[in-house]
Amino acid sequence: MKKHNFSAGPCILAPQVIENTANAVRDLNGIGLSLIEISHRTKYFEPIMEEAQKNFKELIGAPDNYHVLFLGGGASLQFAMVPFNLMEKKAGYIETGVWAKKAIKEAKLFGEVEVLASSADSNFSYFPKNINIPSDLDYVHITTNNTIYGTEIHHDIDCPVTLVADMSSDIMSRPVDVTKYGMIYGGAQKNLGPAGVTFVLIREDILGKVSRQIPTMLDYRTHIKEGSMFNTPPVFAIYAVNETLKWMKQMGGVEKMYELNKAKAQLLYDEIDRNPMFMGTAEKESRSLMNICFVMAPEYKEKEAEFLEFAKSQGMEGLKGHRLVGGFRASTYNALPIESVKALIDCMREFEKKNA
Amino acid sequence: MKKHNFSAGPCILAPQVIENTANAVRDLNGIGLSLIEISHRTKYFEPIMEEAQKNFKELIGAPDNYHVLFLGGGASLQFAMVPFNLMEKKAGYIETGVWAKKAIKEAKLFGEVEVLASSADSNFSYFPKNINIPSDLDYVHITTNNTIYGTEIHHDIDCPVTLVADMSSDIMSRPVDVTKYGMIYGGAQKNLGPAGVTFVLIREDILGKVSRQIPTMLDYRTHIKEGSMFNTPPVFAIYAVNETLKWMKQMGGVEKMYELNKAKAQLLYDEIDRNPMFMGTAEKESRSLMNICFVMAPEYKEKEAEFLEFAKSQGMEGLKGHRLVGGFRASTYNALPIESVKALIDCMREFEKKNA
Repeated sequence: MKKHNFSAGPCILAPQVIENTANAVRDLNGIGLSLIEISHRTKYFEPIMEEAQKNFKELIGAPDNYHVLFLGGGASLQFAMVPFNLMEKKAGYIETGVWAKKAIKEAKLFGEVEVLASSADSNFSYFPKNINIPSDLDYVHITTNNTIYGTEIHHDIDCPVTLVADMSSDIMSRPVDVTKYGMIYGGAQKNLGPAGVTFVLIREDILGKVSRQIPTMLDYRTHIKEGSMFNTPPVFAIYAVNETLKWMKQMGGVEKMYELNKAKAQLLYDEIDRNPMFMGTAEKESRSLMNICFVMAPEYKEKEAEFLEFAKSQGMEGLKGHRLVGGFRASTYNALPIESVKALIDCMREFEKKNA
Repeated sequence: MKKHNFSAGPCILAPQVIENTANAVRDLNGIGLSLIEISHRTKYFEPIMEEAQKNFKELIGAPDNYHVLFLGGGASLQFAMVPFNLMEKKAGYIETGVWAKKAIKEAKLFGEVEVLASSADSNFSYFPKNINIPSDLDYVHITTNNTIYGTEIHHDIDCPVTLVADMSSDIMSRPVDVTKYGMIYGGAQKNLGPAGVTFVLIREDILGKVSRQIPTMLDYRTHIKEGSMFNTPPVFAIYAVNETLKWMKQMGGVEKMYELNKAKAQLLYDEIDRNPMFMGTAEKESRSLMNICFVMAPEYKEKEAEFLEFAKSQGMEGLKGHRLVGGFRASTYNALPIESVKALIDCMREFEKKNA
């Protein structure tokens, strides 16, 4: 039976990414060596790194004064690296969920944090609007999509100071105006590839303004200078990211991803709103195109485990909601085909017929 | 033509590791999903993480009070994490090459560094002996094998304070007495697997003794507490590490690796010493079993490029020495078969016949 992979991350990748990557692990481009046994400082890998950086910039539409880095450690390490590199006195954070809170916690080790807006009052079910941003901040940090709560900001905010965005779970799912951001970062393991590499898109001029000493590996300037080759990069993960970027280009780029993502999300949200057994958890305006969170309607609450079991029997994977929200979460990342959304909707309708 | 992979890292892995890993990328254990599209918090991956930790401890012979962590960021990030977690006032470092120097540079950001011994006086061609270690240090840091210079310490030193070892390039190449170390760490991409994951073997009681605040991701206690699952771990790399550990167990463990490594190294060093066209660069007592560095004898100096070209035509990969030493470097890691060493020796003899 075909599996429909709704996992929140690591998550579904395009079939050709998996196929090409598996082949490269066996033998990279027929060179007689595996992708995972070549030195990174060879003619075998250097062009892959360069191509991945070029494809990233091209797809997201980054001007020349931005650098693409591929680092280890995950977005969680960036929560510390951002203030290490950018905070002299005070930064503004927008508190929209667990990951934003983790970023705030790290920033507090380096200076003063002003929480500019928060949706904690309603279990992060919405993305705050009309945020007032003082101009005396070193930077503002935003988490554009909240994987756990299924909320997302659907536009690029105007920010009078450097704007830093964690786009771990919605990178390249919609077009963004890169010039509004000083830095965009995230773990690759949603829309960009496998776990094990973190992308950083950064404008160099925001760096070098803090007085503290920064350990070499935590200093973005190190990695800009060395083109992400200061130390051995995660070769395999970067290869798979580049395959994902190539696939996105073939599909028609970020505009096309956005169109498909909107179509998938609309189908599923429409069903959630129509089907009397289910209800969405995020406020409609803030609903994520990437992580669609829903629960059983109150009168069917006791059917939750049964629906999960039924959906699983129909090939649905990774549908269980995060414990902080409960219910279900269908992650509809770029690589998820619309057929999987339709299969899930079929499950919901069939379950309705049997139970409502 | 068969390639003989002498790359210094990332480097040769056992054929079954490559085969099994390529298969898992295509479909993990027949579950209908790729290794690189499953969540790390599933029954698919959690047993792999646990098995990798268990196999690591078993192979190296670590007592129960040691923890195995699999982290991102490379050994270079450990250069900062070690003093971040362990240095209150002063630490001792043994300066045996480029990587040791990099570790020293980071440590100086956190406190006083006492260089206890150095072989900088002779371009790091030997491993210092009879090192005097004061007892007022927070810890001592040692780089057990120096990839660039081809030197290695062949025993575990007695240390009156916590001993921290970077074993990136000789981990599990010889049996060690783990109890002599407070911490052993390194990049996986030599003897343990692909690039993209760093192993840390650590005794918990050495932690919690510094007064500074440590960012969450840089605090070893975070990763001990969460079993390396505080954030998304590098799933693919950990899988490949576990396959490598399984292969080592099947082969007969670290004792057997040591026996094979000694045999390979002896063959090649014997040829280097016998063949009038070549000479070794490291002092004999300090010669590495992992990275065998040699150059043309002075009277054949101009033949260097020609030998490299000839060796390459015979299938030898990654044989060029590091620019700081010049000449040639044959990395003879655990997974390199003795046949590759013999093939290289054949090249050296043939080249001798043609030229000497």
